[in-house]
Amino acid sequence: MTASPAKADFPVSQVRRYLEPGPIVLVSSRWRGRANIMTMGWHTVMEFTPALVGCVISSANHSFSMIRGSGECVINLPTTALTDTVVGIGNTTGAEIDKFAHFGLTAEEAEKVGAPLIAECHAHFECRLHDDALIDRYNFFIFEVVKAHVAPSPQHPETLHYTGDGVFMVAGKIIDRRKLFRPEML
Amino acid sequence: MTASPAKADFPVSQVRRYLEPGPIVLVSSRWRGRANIMTMGWHTVMEFTPALVGCVISSANHSFSMIRGSGECVINLPTTALTDTVVGIGNTTGAEIDKFAHFGLTAEEAEKVGAPLIAECHAHFECRLHDDALIDRYNFFIFEVVKAHVAPSPQHPETLHYTGDGVFMVAGKIIDRRKLFRPEML
Repeated sequence: MTASPAKADFPVSQVRRYLEPGPIVLVSSRWRGRANIMTMGWHTVMEFTPALVGCVISSANHSFSMIRGSGECVINLPTTALTDTVVGIGNTTGAEIDKFAHFGLTAEEAEKVGAPLIAECHAHFECRLHDDALIDRYNFFIFEVVKAHVAPSPQHPETLHYTGDGVFMVAGKIIDRRKLFRPEML
Repeated sequence: MTASPAKADFPVSQVRRYLEPGPIVLVSSRWRGRANIMTMGWHTVMEFTPALVGCVISSANHSFSMIRGSGECVINLPTTALTDTVVGIGNTTGAEIDKFAHFGLTAEEAEKVGAPLIAECHAHFECRLHDDALIDRYNFFIFEVVKAHVAPSPQHPETLHYTGDGVFMVAGKIIDRRKLFRPEML
């Protein structure tokens, strides 16, 4: 059983703080009364304001039609405490199991979207579909983050960064070079 | 002076191995006889074959028109050995300095594109512009990696993952969960 850290509101214009480092994330969705979760490693920040995130969601995923149909999802940030859960979620399908129940995860109501938050994660980014222009060609969704929740502590949790082939890199250690930056570049 | 590790050919269909973890990368370009380098943190893998990578290159960057004009670039992967060089490159502009000369970096000829490789980096991904549909709207370039070069050793170099505000996370430690994956998911 993994604890569910308490969250605080976080400015949506600063989600790059958590997503630009490239962690594997858990994407939760709800559509026609059913919820699901998928793992996602192919995503990028695209703009500060509006807070845009682009990501590839394969049409082979059960979540694809749920997210396209509802036009919403939540991007949840797991830490290394959830490693085996992340692997389990990526190796099962919502067509066969209820992933919240199967993996003992807690679905909390989001504020601005119908998709649930995964309470055990370190942060939640509530997303609405902003631009579907590249979905047919590349399965590429552009979302606007409309609400962000982040656990204030720890400040730099260990996150998982997928390399393929069942192997994750772990990030957590910090290098601070703030003093070498021009102020307008921070 | 940072060493320039020897590289071997690497399958372009497997570039996710290095890019999916979300490292900061150095993008080199050449246009009308001049070369330049920029840092980039907003990128994502988009497809295995063709090997597609999407990335945001701000039109405020000197590199923007060079890359759009030439339709080519090289995505180079720096390790923590190049931390201060990465910071320096991100805080200067090619409109004012020759970044290869200024930072003591070695420009090597690429195989398939006109943009140079940065020899001191761990890996190089030669890219051709594949789709410009979202450049005007989001500064979003979709490249095809047409040739990849990777240093065989170390197998898991320490990479930099930018959080904004002058702070990088470092990834290098590995968690191997290969045994928990279904074969078709690897």
